[in-house]
Amino acid sequence: MSRFLKALSGKNEGRPPLWLMRQAGRYLPEYQAIRQKHDFLELCHTPELIQEVTLQPLKRFGFDAAILFSDILVIPEAMGMKLHFDEGQGPIFDAPLSRLKDIENLKEPEPLEFVEKGIKLINEATDRPLIGFAGAPFTVASYMIEGKSSKTLRKTKRWLFEEPESFHKLLEKVKQATLAHLKLQIEAGVKAIQLFESWAPFLAPDELKAFSTDYLEAIRKELPEAIPVMFFSKGIPPKISQKNTGLSVDFTQRLIDVREKVGKEIPLQGNLDPDLLYGPKEGVERATKKLLSDMQGDKAWVFNLGHGILPKTPLENVYALRDTVYNS
Amino acid sequence: MSRFLKALSGKNEGRPPLWLMRQAGRYLPEYQAIRQKHDFLELCHTPELIQEVTLQPLKRFGFDAAILFSDILVIPEAMGMKLHFDEGQGPIFDAPLSRLKDIENLKEPEPLEFVEKGIKLINEATDRPLIGFAGAPFTVASYMIEGKSSKTLRKTKRWLFEEPESFHKLLEKVKQATLAHLKLQIEAGVKAIQLFESWAPFLAPDELKAFSTDYLEAIRKELPEAIPVMFFSKGIPPKISQKNTGLSVDFTQRLIDVREKVGKEIPLQGNLDPDLLYGPKEGVERATKKLLSDMQGDKAWVFNLGHGILPKTPLENVYALRDTVYNS
Repeated sequence: MSRFLKALSGKNEGRPPLWLMRQAGRYLPEYQAIRQKHDFLELCHTPELIQEVTLQPLKRFGFDAAILFSDILVIPEAMGMKLHFDEGQGPIFDAPLSRLKDIENLKEPEPLEFVEKGIKLINEATDRPLIGFAGAPFTVASYMIEGKSSKTLRKTKRWLFEEPESFHKLLEKVKQATLAHLKLQIEAGVKAIQLFESWAPFLAPDELKAFSTDYLEAIRKELPEAIPVMFFSKGIPPKISQKNTGLSVDFTQRLIDVREKVGKEIPLQGNLDPDLLYGPKEGVERATKKLLSDMQGDKAWVFNLGHGILPKTPLENVYALRDTVYNS
Repeated sequence: MSRFLKALSGKNEGRPPLWLMRQAGRYLPEYQAIRQKHDFLELCHTPELIQEVTLQPLKRFGFDAAILFSDILVIPEAMGMKLHFDEGQGPIFDAPLSRLKDIENLKEPEPLEFVEKGIKLINEATDRPLIGFAGAPFTVASYMIEGKSSKTLRKTKRWLFEEPESFHKLLEKVKQATLAHLKLQIEAGVKAIQLFESWAPFLAPDELKAFSTDYLEAIRKELPEAIPVMFFSKGIPPKISQKNTGLSVDFTQRLIDVREKVGKEIPLQGNLDPDLLYGPKEGVERATKKLLSDMQGDKAWVFNLGHGILPKTPLENVYALRDTVYNS
């Protein structure tokens, strides 16, 4: 069994396995080169390109796991929402949802065969475990309502407080589509699933439970128990009550504190601050060593960043991070 | 002693005192009317207008405390940075800081006499306690570097990791200016101080201590012990180790959980989600009653929102909130 899957089942010995959120991304010159020829959505839609981009960081750094190159917004796209990516602005929906009728008009998505095929191509080319993923329903629904990234989620929260019933209707539809998509990924060959609830910090505890955590748990429940599932959620992490389920922890919490809270059985992943990799190499090495020392002997830990690796991150800092982990 | 100051000293009986962050602001028609005639900075710079706007929410709602109408960016402005406010965009510095030389060129600010005079005028017109405030050094420094509000604080964090020494130099300068300004407010007659560290969630625990909390504590230490000081910090609240110091808690945490953590002596303030006030009145009343019931009998609690009240909040919901608190 690979080091990565061992850690997810709490049985890793020696150094922790390592991968980085957004490891296939803009900080890589080979990724930039491919983006010169293809736009972002084209990459997401083309199995051969999915394969190539997914494998790039493995080839360069030899990370312990691959993560499928895709985007959380392929789900609303498959539900009929036209999506484009503006350079610098990120994803934009041409017609965000604004009333109940818009929710009713969403279609049940067809299976995303380009993802299925991409996964198979990746697995033909590498033995490293491949991680599948999706956005959590609340985060995806928020994008569908805001139409783009937002600093406040004002429209979403207004909807949620004004008409919780129709908001739940939307979450339920997104949940169903997400489940189908995750099952397709699992059948195609991913070995673990990560669910991204990036926008959890916009919710107070009661709404967090009703509109986020309950849906995460419902999704986990319908996935095969043998497949490890990791929740990534900024801010206060959700309580884990399901088997083979773990937390990808953001950088605002001390990983040892989270470990103490959840007990030693729950798989944890994280959590260096990605901004740290803009600083000098010595700082990267120092912080990496400190985290390694904090978590020494932890059998259920996957080394990662506490958020996606950033564009323009100097490659030498990624090498320094990797070497420090691999030589530990 | 007023109900507000009693609560801050842990001796309140009966219903909690009530005020709302940003209670003098855009949701008020009488504020909108004044803004037709004067731009935002003119309001901040003119004692008579500071008085008028500060008193508006007291006249309409009879809240238990007033908060000085001002802005956290009057400090960098006084240090020589040209500031303007774009409608919709918020505050913008024409020339954000980008290197050590820019920090060295910041001047030691003159006392802001318009604030001093504004405070005196307010106190002539009301017996309600007046709260003074400032931004915490990290939040203010971040604005000075980013030049405007930011979703990522990328430039700030890059600076912080690349050159922590010069970043501390900046924080130290901002701290000194902030201290002088807070002392001026206290001498002019404010009865409590609130420090806003709005951008704390961008920092991992080690950096949070070094660049945020240490500075908050240093400021508190140099203010008169008799003046209550409240820290507002989004996300995980800082530990309180100083006398007469409390927490203004944002909406992502359950106030009773925070109370359990800090013990019953520490003054707490908060924490309804301001987005809730966009929903139906019944929801506002329900949530208000729930919070009142959670915190029943708490002698050191000030009822407030967990963030500033939002533009376009329906007034009837503010009345509903107030009536529910006042009739409890």
